Amino acid sequence: MNSIVLSVGTELLLGQILNTNERFISEELQKLGVGVIYRGVVGDNAERLEKLVRISAENADLIIISGGLGPTEDDLTKETVAKALGIELVFNEYCMKSIEEAFKSYNISMSENNVKQAYIPKGAVVLENKQGTAPGFFLETEFNKKNIMVAVLPGPPREMESMFRSALSPELKKKTNANIYYKNLRLIGIGESQLETDLIELISNQTDPTIATYAKDGECSVRVTSMKEHMEDAVESVNNMVDKIDKLVGRYIYSYDDKDLIEVVAEKLFNKNLTISTAESCTGGMLGSAFTDIPDISKVYDGGFITYSNRAKIEELNVNQVTLDKHGAVSPEVACEMADGARKNRNTDIGVSITGIAGPGGGSVEKPVGLAYVGISSKDGVKSFKLKVKDYGRKYIKHRFLLLILMHLNDELEKL
Amino acid sequence: MNSIVLSVGTELLLGQILNTNERFISEELQKLGVGVIYRGVVGDNAERLEKLVRISAENADLIIISGGLGPTEDDLTKETVAKALGIELVFNEYCMKSIEEAFKSYNISMSENNVKQAYIPKGAVVLENKQGTAPGFFLETEFNKKNIMVAVLPGPPREMESMFRSALSPELKKKTNANIYYKNLRLIGIGESQLETDLIELISNQTDPTIATYAKDGECSVRVTSMKEHMEDAVESVNNMVDKIDKLVGRYIYSYDDKDLIEVVAEKLFNKNLTISTAESCTGGMLGSAFTDIPDISKVYDGGFITYSNRAKIEELNVNQVTLDKHGAVSPEVACEMADGARKNRNTDIGVSITGIAGPGGGSVEKPVGLAYVGISSKDGVKSFKLKVKDYGRKYIKHRFLLLILMHLNDELEKL
Repeated sequence: MNSIVLSVGTELLLGQILNTNERFISEELQKLGVGVIYRGVVGDNAERLEKLVRISAENADLIIISGGLGPTEDDLTKETVAKALGIELVFNEYCMKSIEEAFKSYNISMSENNVKQAYIPKGAVVLENKQGTAPGFFLETEFNKKNIMVAVLPGPPREMESMFRSALSPELKKKTNANIYYKNLRLIGIGESQLETDLIELISNQTDPTIATYAKDGECSVRVTSMKEHMEDAVESVNNMVDKIDKLVGRYIYSYDDKDLIEVVAEKLFNKNLTISTAESCTGGMLGSAFTDIPDISKVYDGGFITYSNRAKIEELNVNQVTLDKHGAVSPEVACEMADGARKNRNTDIGVSITGIAGPGGGSVEKPVGLAYVGISSKDGVKSFKLKVKDYGRKYIKHRFLLLILMHLNDELEKL
Repeated sequence: MNSIVLSVGTELLLGQILNTNERFISEELQKLGVGVIYRGVVGDNAERLEKLVRISAENADLIIISGGLGPTEDDLTKETVAKALGIELVFNEYCMKSIEEAFKSYNISMSENNVKQAYIPKGAVVLENKQGTAPGFFLETEFNKKNIMVAVLPGPPREMESMFRSALSPELKKKTNANIYYKNLRLIGIGESQLETDLIELISNQTDPTIATYAKDGECSVRVTSMKEHMEDAVESVNNMVDKIDKLVGRYIYSYDDKDLIEVVAEKLFNKNLTISTAESCTGGMLGSAFTDIPDISKVYDGGFITYSNRAKIEELNVNQVTLDKHGAVSPEVACEMADGARKNRNTDIGVSITGIAGPGGGSVEKPVGLAYVGISSKDGVKSFKLKVKDYGRKYIKHRFLLLILMHLNDELEKL
């Protein structure tokens, strides 16, 4: 089954808000084994929407449309879809009642406009809106002598997501008789082209499960998906393939179940009951902030130091003035002293530090922008790691540094 | 001039990555006075892309396509666009040279595949890629007896954005004979619906300049745009309208020239030559990281403290155990002591602190998740500010806290 996902709304078309609905819908459709062939966005313009619905109906088995179901004059999705497909709208008693009840529960009075929300195309199944007033619908019909299905959902993500999961998904499941299972492996330390090369034989010969590689923000992922009549067959097929991939590139895989690197690092700290402290120069608190994105991190992380200047490194982390003079602030030696200082001052099992050059100024031939050293101090002593990233601007560099700190930390935690 | 914006890439189509290119391109086109009528996404599938390009060429004056310009077999945008429009690809000596130079600068050897990147459609203008290897192009041609323009850009946002601004924008400016001028005002502390209400008379009567309000990530903006034959008329028209808006909602405006709040705060610190230090509990280093996103911040910011536990607050910031026992860690009193401690320990003009509850645990009826206190210490003494944000998850809460810290800091810096 092939689908086209459409979004309606001038604010989406003009880029005033990011379209997160498309992403959600695409992911949910994949889980149902429904392929997405196109996605489209159109403004609150009846003529253009009608054209788009017709083109879509000609090209796909299923069209999913979100947005434009509200009570105002701008909201014209329902009327336009009905017109494009040649179906009339009929008043729906059940819809009217739910809308009235929703308003009662908000304790605000319903306006005349809301009556319009109770009309749905003849023959459509109403999709209940548990998070707002606008009902959606699911319709099977014929267009140009071809059977098509159309689902119309509200635009606000909270309402749309809830309706998709609770009302539309069950309708779509009736139409597909396959079971989908997938795993998303996450890798760091390998580029996408190398990854493809390493997996080329598996990729070239793929049927089921399918294998897809992606690169994003400095790391890679491999999605392995199987679609079978029985769920257990899909699970087995995916697991067998994951074993094969593991043999080829296992040393780069940090998560077999789509976890972020910071989550994987935090889990290791939790499981090994190891406390950690941070000492950051060029990342300026980004590592600490990443840790504190994790719920309950206070069990293993109670704080750290942002030591941007030499003075701060000396005062807060007991870095030696002689070391700074001899090797410079961006050096393995200073990284090690920072990590030791953080570990000692906060009395933790591990101290992790970074000192580097995020640019745009401060670089030299020997120590260019994008160079940094990470220090990791533990009961086994202190180690340093050199980082080198491309100078694509300060934010980019900081982000890559963060990933690489976590990569080294993850490796070291494995051994502790 | 009407445009259609297309993105190519299976990972976009399937929702594996968010499509930020579309948003960027739509915003840039608006600035150029080019209307966007549709946006579309298609996977790495030549047949479907070809169909989409043809449909788009029939419906718009300008098509902007990003993605699928890489060296691998998946990357088929250039070939497919050329085929859809009936134009042949020709080898371009200049492109080849830039690609070779890019590889030299990376210090890696070029593969055979990269030669394919040096082919562009006959008659097209090469758009140089300063951030990667794949060149883009801009083409004027005829399709079904209609003049159309097509621009093809690389997919990675950094490459695409740089190419759009430096190479495509100048080409498009030649095609529009109007002069566009706009200002983007940034506001914080007011919601979008209140903003619309306050500006309703200006918005309802708008012709030129146009006024558009947006809400994004906890703040609002107002874009005022004028399109005139002469640039000075456009500038005057925008400035007059900005004056009117300033009279109505001026106290919420923190930037008249689209700067981020952290930039505005950093500028005040630079201009007033005031040094600052940070003491963060719930934001865990996010504020320090935001400061260190600003080049040259070391002139005013030399470091700070991440004090997640009470112990760290006592040890690093000299917070009083009695204060913690009496008022709790999340209290105006502790926020003030943290700010004082940071200011004193790092010997800065200003100390700024935050202590709060980011959830999911740790909340109570009196002190719910989403509550925080900010402390600001300066020569004028120490003040605290209460923050209260909705509990939409830990990352959301941290982000909103950051914005609100900066809002209060900006206000206080105004007075110092």
